[in-house]
Amino acid sequence: MEEYVKENRNENMQKYLEKAQVLIEALPYIQRFNRKIIVVKYGGSAMVDESLKKRVIEDVTLLKLVGFKPIIVHGGGKEISKWVGKVGMEPQFINGLRVTDADTMEVAEMVLGKVNKSLVQMVEQLGVRAIGISGKDGALLKVDKKYAQGKDIGYVGEIKEVNAKILYDLLEKDFLPIVCPIGLDDAFQTYNINADDAACAIACAMNAEKLAFLTDIEGVYKDPEDPSTLISELWVEEAEKLMEEGYIEGGMLPKLRNCVDAIENGVSRVHILDGRIPHCLLLEIFTNRGIGTAILHGKESRYYHGEQ
Amino acid sequence: MEEYVKENRNENMQKYLEKAQVLIEALPYIQRFNRKIIVVKYGGSAMVDESLKKRVIEDVTLLKLVGFKPIIVHGGGKEISKWVGKVGMEPQFINGLRVTDADTMEVAEMVLGKVNKSLVQMVEQLGVRAIGISGKDGALLKVDKKYAQGKDIGYVGEIKEVNAKILYDLLEKDFLPIVCPIGLDDAFQTYNINADDAACAIACAMNAEKLAFLTDIEGVYKDPEDPSTLISELWVEEAEKLMEEGYIEGGMLPKLRNCVDAIENGVSRVHILDGRIPHCLLLEIFTNRGIGTAILHGKESRYYHGEQ
Amino acid sequence: MEEYVKENRNENMQKYLEKAQVLIEALPYIQRFNRKIIVVKYGGSAMVDESLKKRVIEDVTLLKLVGFKPIIVHGGGKEISKWVGKVGMEPQFINGLRVTDADTMEVAEMVLGKVNKSLVQMVEQLGVRAIGISGKDGALLKVDKKYAQGKDIGYVGEIKEVNAKILYDLLEKDFLPIVCPIGLDDAFQTYNINADDAACAIACAMNAEKLAFLTDIEGVYKDPEDPSTLISELWVEEAEKLMEEGYIEGGMLPKLRNCVDAIENGVSRVHILDGRIPHCLLLEIFTNRGIGTAILHGKESRYYHGEQ
Amino acid sequence: MEEYVKENRNENMQKYLEKAQVLIEALPYIQRFNRKIIVVKYGGSAMVDESLKKRVIEDVTLLKLVGFKPIIVHGGGKEISKWVGKVGMEPQFINGLRVTDADTMEVAEMVLGKVNKSLVQMVEQLGVRAIGISGKDGALLKVDKKYAQGKDIGYVGEIKEVNAKILYDLLEKDFLPIVCPIGLDDAFQTYNINADDAACAIACAMNAEKLAFLTDIEGVYKDPEDPSTLISELWVEEAEKLMEEGYIEGGMLPKLRNCVDAIENGVSRVHILDGRIPHCLLLEIFTNRGIGTAILHGKESRYYHGEQ
Amino acid sequence: MEEYVKENRNENMQKYLEKAQVLIEALPYIQRFNRKIIVVKYGGSAMVDESLKKRVIEDVTLLKLVGFKPIIVHGGGKEISKWVGKVGMEPQFINGLRVTDADTMEVAEMVLGKVNKSLVQMVEQLGVRAIGISGKDGALLKVDKKYAQGKDIGYVGEIKEVNAKILYDLLEKDFLPIVCPIGLDDAFQTYNINADDAACAIACAMNAEKLAFLTDIEGVYKDPEDPSTLISELWVEEAEKLMEEGYIEGGMLPKLRNCVDAIENGVSRVHILDGRIPHCLLLEIFTNRGIGTAILHGKESRYYHGEQ
Amino acid sequence: MEEYVKENRNENMQKYLEKAQVLIEALPYIQRFNRKIIVVKYGGSAMVDESLKKRVIEDVTLLKLVGFKPIIVHGGGKEISKWVGKVGMEPQFINGLRVTDADTMEVAEMVLGKVNKSLVQMVEQLGVRAIGISGKDGALLKVDKKYAQGKDIGYVGEIKEVNAKILYDLLEKDFLPIVCPIGLDDAFQTYNINADDAACAIACAMNAEKLAFLTDIEGVYKDPEDPSTLISELWVEEAEKLMEEGYIEGGMLPKLRNCVDAIENGVSRVHILDGRIPHCLLLEIFTNRGIGTAILHGKESRYYHGEQ
Repeated sequence: MEEYVKENRNENMQKYLEKAQVLIEALPYIQRFNRKIIVVKYGGSAMVDESLKKRVIEDVTLLKLVGFKPIIVHGGGKEISKWVGKVGMEPQFINGLRVTDADTMEVAEMVLGKVNKSLVQMVEQLGVRAIGISGKDGALLKVDKKYAQGKDIGYVGEIKEVNAKILYDLLEKDFLPIVCPIGLDDAFQTYNINADDAACAIACAMNAEKLAFLTDIEGVYKDPEDPSTLISELWVEEAEKLMEEGYIEGGMLPKLRNCVDAIENGVSRVHILDGRIPHCLLLEIFTNRGIGTAILHGKESRYYHGEQ
Repeated sequence: MEEYVKENRNENMQKYLEKAQVLIEALPYIQRFNRKIIVVKYGGSAMVDESLKKRVIEDVTLLKLVGFKPIIVHGGGKEISKWVGKVGMEPQFINGLRVTDADTMEVAEMVLGKVNKSLVQMVEQLGVRAIGISGKDGALLKVDKKYAQGKDIGYVGEIKEVNAKILYDLLEKDFLPIVCPIGLDDAFQTYNINADDAACAIACAMNAEKLAFLTDIEGVYKDPEDPSTLISELWVEEAEKLMEEGYIEGGMLPKLRNCVDAIENGVSRVHILDGRIPHCLLLEIFTNRGIGTAILHGKESRYYHGEQ
Repeated sequence: MEEYVKENRNENMQKYLEKAQVLIEALPYIQRFNRKIIVVKYGGSAMVDESLKKRVIEDVTLLKLVGFKPIIVHGGGKEISKWVGKVGMEPQFINGLRVTDADTMEVAEMVLGKVNKSLVQMVEQLGVRAIGISGKDGALLKVDKKYAQGKDIGYVGEIKEVNAKILYDLLEKDFLPIVCPIGLDDAFQTYNINADDAACAIACAMNAEKLAFLTDIEGVYKDPEDPSTLISELWVEEAEKLMEEGYIEGGMLPKLRNCVDAIENGVSRVHILDGRIPHCLLLEIFTNRGIGTAILHGKESRYYHGEQ
Repeated sequence: MEEYVKENRNENMQKYLEKAQVLIEALPYIQRFNRKIIVVKYGGSAMVDESLKKRVIEDVTLLKLVGFKPIIVHGGGKEISKWVGKVGMEPQFINGLRVTDADTMEVAEMVLGKVNKSLVQMVEQLGVRAIGISGKDGALLKVDKKYAQGKDIGYVGEIKEVNAKILYDLLEKDFLPIVCPIGLDDAFQTYNINADDAACAIACAMNAEKLAFLTDIEGVYKDPEDPSTLISELWVEEAEKLMEEGYIEGGMLPKLRNCVDAIENGVSRVHILDGRIPHCLLLEIFTNRGIGTAILHGKESRYYHGEQ
Repeated sequence: MEEYVKENRNENMQKYLEKAQVLIEALPYIQRFNRKIIVVKYGGSAMVDESLKKRVIEDVTLLKLVGFKPIIVHGGGKEISKWVGKVGMEPQFINGLRVTDADTMEVAEMVLGKVNKSLVQMVEQLGVRAIGISGKDGALLKVDKKYAQGKDIGYVGEIKEVNAKILYDLLEKDFLPIVCPIGLDDAFQTYNINADDAACAIACAMNAEKLAFLTDIEGVYKDPEDPSTLISELWVEEAEKLMEEGYIEGGMLPKLRNCVDAIENGVSRVHILDGRIPHCLLLEIFTNRGIGTAILHGKESRYYHGEQ
Repeated sequence: MEEYVKENRNENMQKYLEKAQVLIEALPYIQRFNRKIIVVKYGGSAMVDESLKKRVIEDVTLLKLVGFKPIIVHGGGKEISKWVGKVGMEPQFINGLRVTDADTMEVAEMVLGKVNKSLVQMVEQLGVRAIGISGKDGALLKVDKKYAQGKDIGYVGEIKEVNAKILYDLLEKDFLPIVCPIGLDDAFQTYNINADDAACAIACAMNAEKLAFLTDIEGVYKDPEDPSTLISELWVEEAEKLMEEGYIEGGMLPKLRNCVDAIENGVSRVHILDGRIPHCLLLEIFTNRGIGTAILHGKESRYYHGEQ
């Protein structure tokens, strides 16, 4: 009987030692990103599925606790449409484009605010100090009105200035900032901003070490029809060429555009990750498993020295 | 002709000199409240009327700019009811008491968030750094579930802890904090909090110099039927006695209770102001006009030395 | 009877509301000059008339309290002559120029010291922290001996170096510095300095936002004989031209020279104000009344955006 | 073929996800010990076996990187005896006790210094800032001469004062301090100190959250002959009683004495760990596996809330 | 010839080595008073004789440079009487006491101001940052009117409050503060203060390590007629007894009173030094030569451990 | 009898006054080097003779106490050879060059560590905070392997990087850093470094005001055979020329090379001092006696303005 216990105990011990080993393997990564700013654009499926949501928040909270400086930028996803319907509003279109009129803007802001505070709540529950802000707080995001091919599509803004000092001040006070993409124009009117754009602008303004987009696809494909053409690493020039040559289509086009802009404006690395994989952020940062597509400055490998 | 100009000019000059005089008269008040914390509970008519709203925000912004440390705590007023209706929800009642079920809580949080950011927006437009937070941010407000005479009325919380460090950190970074009264219980569930209670708890936790309630009445009356019985200053013991003897009724009873609690827990002075008077905050602070009712520690006058 | 009271009360209320309005109108100005350095050259009638003196000190103290960083530079005016006489000294002249011999220098320093501390006293009485220094303290003002057209006129110095660090250190400790224009040469001998020159040199060394001269005239006239030719704003090039073309005469010539030098060496705006108008400093800063003459960088208006 | 790859890939993915899970499980522990001081007494087998040595250093470095404030106190173990022999010295004994004469002290200091810097070297290689000091640096450890039952045993010291400011200053500059147990008496003579005593004194002086002894046994046994009597947690009063009643013998007696002293002088928890288990420190801190013996303040469990 | 040079050189070398030895002997003293506040009351002959004056200033400047925090408090000595005469004023007396009327006060302030800045000048010339202030600056010295046995003797004040924060702020900015003994009453009127009283009050308010009075006598005598009765050290109780028993007379009585008060209010040691001995301050502090009289807390020797 | 005492006393007084005079003469030097970094290479006889050793430590400690920022870099001198012999090791040679194999390196590191802490001990005894580090601590000194004319001479390193931040951090915490010349290569292996090279590299990395080599000779001679050709000051170009023209030989050649490199890389002045003269450091710094050879930027005199 005692033998059995002992054996069983040894078995457990083995399990524990493996755990210790995992933590030790994280050492070089923890060290590399110490005090570095990492902007995470959070949206898509990872925001709808409660289980995935919990994992994303766990990941970002862990990054904070081990000494990184993450900032979350999130969208409102399908919640906005749901609530627009709920209050009985009719979507408007101009030339086939959805228009953000004053009423839609009001609902969108309410929904984004709700989502924002629910993320704060989850981070706080994990014992980390979070603060949920929009681009209005401290006038973080100043915008110009955006037109779609000359058409007025309402309160949709294009970022012209990020007041990075606000985020530095909050980071200094040890907050994990969670930002929803709403901005102010020069007349201090409310505008909706594309969340990808907001994440990109913030990452650039703060010279982030990493900008990670949590998406609903595996990464960039050479041929979207063929999953085997997933591209693991992409230099800026290659990305430009792919876009020029028409390989990139649909929603990926503006996203890749953002990635390239970010690299060209001071962000060290940009990642398009599959938010449907649990803990994709941790996998990207703490393991040498190359998930998704990494967009890089020319002529470097996504693997740091000594890795692979 | 020139005479006329001269005269006219002198007339203007007279007007300007009077303006200068007003500024000079503000000197001792600016000095007295330098770096002092002033909590303003903002609600009622002052929140509905756009013109009054603008004036309240101007007042608080001025207080910030001349060196005070104001904090706004606001409610959502009639907006919440409006939106509850808009989404087609039926109010629930238990023994005649309105119940905050999960759906109502969701709408209330959205509306409070919207109001919160609209106040931020107005302060920013006046050139002052504001930040809008709820009791979730930094887990500022921790609550216990509140029961109404033993009845479960849903997600209504009673504050048990204010994480004052959060507000000190934001004040240190020169933000004007604007707080909406939502809290978290130990399981990190969302709860609605009475805005008066939140303002009172925050003022106590920060040892505020002043706590001012913007209300829809002139102040405390000995006889609510008789406007001539408005009480200008009230010592804590007098207030206790008035409450015991049944002079105070209706909504004024919990409010006066809050005032007394605040004085007994470290706030220097509490004011019940008539939010319908434009710039009532400035009038209270910068002039010797005794508006509303001041609740004081025993045996002192509401007028500082040399005033009256 | 009660009606009367009510009416009377309303009338008072009206008066109070107007006061509140004045304070609110000051908002944008308070904000614009927040933490900005403003050097005030204080002399002339405003220094002799006790009532005007009180008003100047009130003005500067208010500027300090609402967050500006004023520095006063003062002369000794007629007090020096008075005391030189009192101790029975004979003024000396060389080619018609008054000479500051050692004895005169001693009396001048004593009188300036007395004036200096009396200003400190007035500011302290208004509850603001002042410190009275001369150019000796911290070797603030280093001078070379100055000659008048080659003639030795004694201990009269020309500033060659301002140790701005001294003033920054005092401002950082929240003092309002009050400076009397005495300096040290390389052998650490005492020298008298023209107060206008000292104010100008200090404003330049500290990149002041404003330099204001309180004088005994309304401002710069195109024709000093004709008050209607008062110039409200003057660009540096215009000022240079006026001086070249001989429109500017007498004591105004070196003063305007100082103004132009200040603008060319880092001061944003220079003002020649009529110190005989009570609260002229507040009028200049807090209202859109253009008093005196403003000397500006080319091609801008003295009115800020949105004003006038 | 592709199927195989996919399967294989999924298998890897599973492995990666398990790794992520381990990291996530560390979250509450990282959070609990954030900025807490943890003193590790490092000696015994863990210091001889190169592979164990590497693991101990990895553990401590990880603790540093995730935000704890570890301090290592180490002995010289068998290296001292080795070198004493190498230089041809004869050990001296008085009444059977080894004597630290001047020559032995010199060799001991040299060996401890060598061990000290070799630990620094290993930590630096892992990318963390280490500094190796003895009790001489900053006069960290002041001692009195220690006698063994009245006998003079040479330069052996008993700590009478820890200059904690030195360690706080080094922690503030983000160093991981590695301390060797040498001290100075009032005449600034060199003394050897027992490493357990040094670790205990330092942990007390710094109010450490944890003091962990890496030893060559599994923990405290009720009956040293019977491994099944290993005690998992021990309250101070129980430990006192065990010692009084003679259950504890040999080298464990002074060690347990140290543990109890530490708890009574401000250390929150003390652990006797089996240094022969790789990563025993991480196992103790990051898992709910109760390894070794925990000495606690009375009436609490070694498991924190929600654990076990 | 070369021999001669060599010899001569050796002789010089000897001289230099002796110099080095003196510096080395200063080591323990420099260390003991590092960052300690030392208040020096400067007056009497040491203030009249230019050569002595230079030496006092050199001494204090050296103290500053080697890391002490000296503060000079000075009187105006005979200069005031001289200038009162110079401007033709008649001294007034009430019951044989000199009266400080408004005119006398004005002259006294001017003279003290002049003396103050001349000391600043000398310190600056030695390359140390000095600042000359009176009790008006920062309202450093608040006084009550003082009466001489019930008689009104004009603007003579008794210190009731020292705003020590002012001096701490100036010390923090590395100034050597030089204070002249003028104060303000509650109505902000100017008052003259006895310089000994001012030095004593300031030393107490700052918990000075030392308070040194530079006087015109060798120290305290048991029998003023007999120089051989000079007392080298005096405990507080002894001093009290000497005063009670009538051994102390004339100007020494209030001075000794001040010394005792200082010791009883937080000053560690008080010294009555003979300002006529050049460098008496350095001799007292840097050598074990006991000059003057040291007033001490009971039962300690004026010599520190290891000295004498 | 009393006369005698008096006379004797006066004689003593004279001696004391001379001491005071010496301190006063140090004033300008103390002031000039306030907060300046001074690197002292300590080795040779000054390290062997206990009496000289004491004097060097006294000198450096005094420099620290009067406000300079000294850093000591020391070698191990003859101690290393002594211990290599003691443990019975045979020195190895390759082409006549001594080889630092692993065993030699181990002994060297132990000896250097012992010397290092003995210096710390002496400084601490004088009451100053010292810390003894090697180039391993904080990875202060990173090296490349050095070859002697292509031959492998073992673990001898050439500095390629000084992590100056480490020393700045320690200076900021008021430590006197004492550094022994051991470094790490990229694989974190231990290497021995020439102490002169280490002192030079550190002085350059910290832009030291002075770098002083304590040597066993008087200075640089034009003709080493003729002591009368000692060179008092040497401009960089002159030194280069002397080296080119072959005047400099033996051990002086690399030392002078170091001096020139230091001057060309940011050190203001370099001194070759005769460590056999007691207090040579103080003599060089506090007197105008030109001892040893000063290496200077071109065209300046070793004497500062006003000296000599």
